[in-house]
Amino acid sequence: MSDAHAARRARLRDRFLATGSGAALVSRPANIRYLTGCTPPGAVLLVGREPDQDHLVAARRPGRDPAEGQPPDGVRITVLPSPETDAVVTAAALAAGMCDAPVAVEEHHLTVARHRVAASAAPGLRLADLGCAVEQLRLVKDEEEINFLRIAAEITDQALGELLESILVGRTERHLALELERRLIDHGADGPAFPTRVGTGPHSGLAAHPPTDRRVEEGDLLTVALGAAYRGYRCEIARTFVIGTAPADWQIEIYEQVFAAQRAGREALAPGVPCREVHRAAREVLERAGHQGAPGPLLGHGVGLEIGEDPQLSSGAMGKLDACVPVTVEPGVHLPGRGGVRIDDTLVVRPPAEGGPELLTITTKELLAL
Amino acid sequence: MSDAHAARRARLRDRFLATGSGAALVSRPANIRYLTGCTPPGAVLLVGREPDQDHLVAARRPGRDPAEGQPPDGVRITVLPSPETDAVVTAAALAAGMCDAPVAVEEHHLTVARHRVAASAAPGLRLADLGCAVEQLRLVKDEEEINFLRIAAEITDQALGELLESILVGRTERHLALELERRLIDHGADGPAFPTRVGTGPHSGLAAHPPTDRRVEEGDLLTVALGAAYRGYRCEIARTFVIGTAPADWQIEIYEQVFAAQRAGREALAPGVPCREVHRAAREVLERAGHQGAPGPLLGHGVGLEIGEDPQLSSGAMGKLDACVPVTVEPGVHLPGRGGVRIDDTLVVRPPAEGGPELLTITTKELLAL
Repeated sequence: MSDAHAARRARLRDRFLATGSGAALVSRPANIRYLTGCTPPGAVLLVGREPDQDHLVAARRPGRDPAEGQPPDGVRITVLPSPETDAVVTAAALAAGMCDAPVAVEEHHLTVARHRVAASAAPGLRLADLGCAVEQLRLVKDEEEINFLRIAAEITDQALGELLESILVGRTERHLALELERRLIDHGADGPAFPTRVGTGPHSGLAAHPPTDRRVEEGDLLTVALGAAYRGYRCEIARTFVIGTAPADWQIEIYEQVFAAQRAGREALAPGVPCREVHRAAREVLERAGHQGAPGPLLGHGVGLEIGEDPQLSSGAMGKLDACVPVTVEPGVHLPGRGGVRIDDTLVVRPPAEGGPELLTITTKELLAL
Repeated sequence: MSDAHAARRARLRDRFLATGSGAALVSRPANIRYLTGCTPPGAVLLVGREPDQDHLVAARRPGRDPAEGQPPDGVRITVLPSPETDAVVTAAALAAGMCDAPVAVEEHHLTVARHRVAASAAPGLRLADLGCAVEQLRLVKDEEEINFLRIAAEITDQALGELLESILVGRTERHLALELERRLIDHGADGPAFPTRVGTGPHSGLAAHPPTDRRVEEGDLLTVALGAAYRGYRCEIARTFVIGTAPADWQIEIYEQVFAAQRAGREALAPGVPCREVHRAAREVLERAGHQGAPGPLLGHGVGLEIGEDPQLSSGAMGKLDACVPVTVEPGVHLPGRGGVRIDDTLVVRPPAEGGPELLTITTKELLAL
């Protein structure tokens, strides 16, 4: 991967040199991982005018914790003398020694206080704003990144599939969530991509429902949302099941509506399509079914080294989709007091000529009665 | 608790009014929870000149997720119209409408970009720095906070005690960590206070070792570090055990050295004692035993709504201890390739007249052979 990381740093270098900066300080952990393959604690990455100036400043030598990634190639490493030192000060001083041009920092990540100490790290140092340059580079994934997401999705499907073979009635949402997270790790995940959510009965279909001590009962709808992180890459799936042999008509009806909305969203994914069009495609299905306001402001989002990345598939989103951008499509409907349905997949946007969107999370979306 | 939260906001009000600010915007989640009892996502708390001006701006109505605490009393609540809106902008505009004096913000938490949009939320708005005023209020805990920590410690001792009754040989670090976290939740924790760490054999005694797939073997030292969060309050414990009936002499020797250092640190805790004296007391024991550099730069730290709070028990710390400040004392020694010992307790600083430091984590510190 070291070549890929060096190539990413080279693209970032082109960007900040073009805006008149002489170096960049990258402080956002996911951005550092994207550019080096690792994120040791308290790290700041200096990207210089020349590749041999790239320098990682961290509180600890990289590579001791596998969850922090592999030790980087092609960057010098400085370990901070004391835990009180802020890497951004050391990195800013190094950058000031390399060039007289402004040093670009991530103003959307650095706090006002850290920005102030960075600015005073060297006399005459001028700071500029790097903006979201690294996040923009991260938007379109290369095949290696997509492969990591593919493996994360396989792990996720395996963990979910095993849960479906076990007895669910009588177990609490919390226990089901913990078991899913254990199975993710059993199958080789770094860990959960986000806190696993399990909602049963009146909790089913909610977007951000934290697991409670409610037990699964006959006749419940059961919504689970989980995802594995693999080599730092995070995917997401949600499925809704019915507990018992005979789903009620209202359960079947809502399920079919959400399923149709999710399919409409998935089928709308293509390079060049405005993000808000994907939201509209799913929203129209649910509004025709009488669910005003569903699926809420956000139908889905990009995934990668973070679980909530751009693009945002919202009604107000301005951008367009690109090929090789992984996104979630996750509509849901919830009837207060009764429950609801939520269906979520992770897909990669592909042109129609290549067969259209690539579905990474392949667990069935039939309404299973467990 | 609402009275306690109102009293805390009143103390903060006194502070920023004394520095000439007319309102404060609190954005750091733990600080918002301290002042209101809850932290809904994306929240910013406006503390006004008068109590009836206190106003919580959030992306979602508080109280839906128990992990976010209870809905607050005595503060008005505004839910943001869209997920794209930043609460700090809405809160800054509200504050500007209330006073002409500067509005104090948490420059150590707000990013440069958020600070910029906050500053432009209203014409003529001037922003000042609140600094760590809320963190300073949080340092000394009231009896209710200490009681939450006491319960968190009881839960932690229970989870650890149950693990010790089970068979450990052959199980992986990851599984032991997940079982401990499940037991924390079984006993009523909100969740783990921090990611549970389990290190066996050569991994034992490390401070920040993430669980791996290594299995527990006869003759290993086994270090576990865990803690429960209860009502938002986080405690910490670490213990080291020997696996099998006959600990090696070097294992017993290191254990006794770390135990003596940890006791020296615990016994040094008293109101008025400089934090670095606590570090020195433990360090001297380990240096006399020939462990140069142990216990590293940090012997322990404050705990509360966050697991790593002030005070820092480091060799360079400048402050003194106060009564009713909960801290950890966690020396460790690690021999590369062989393993080591780490012992960590959470205690509350109390004056000698009250019997000295109050030990919250009471699991035995004898060297247990499991």
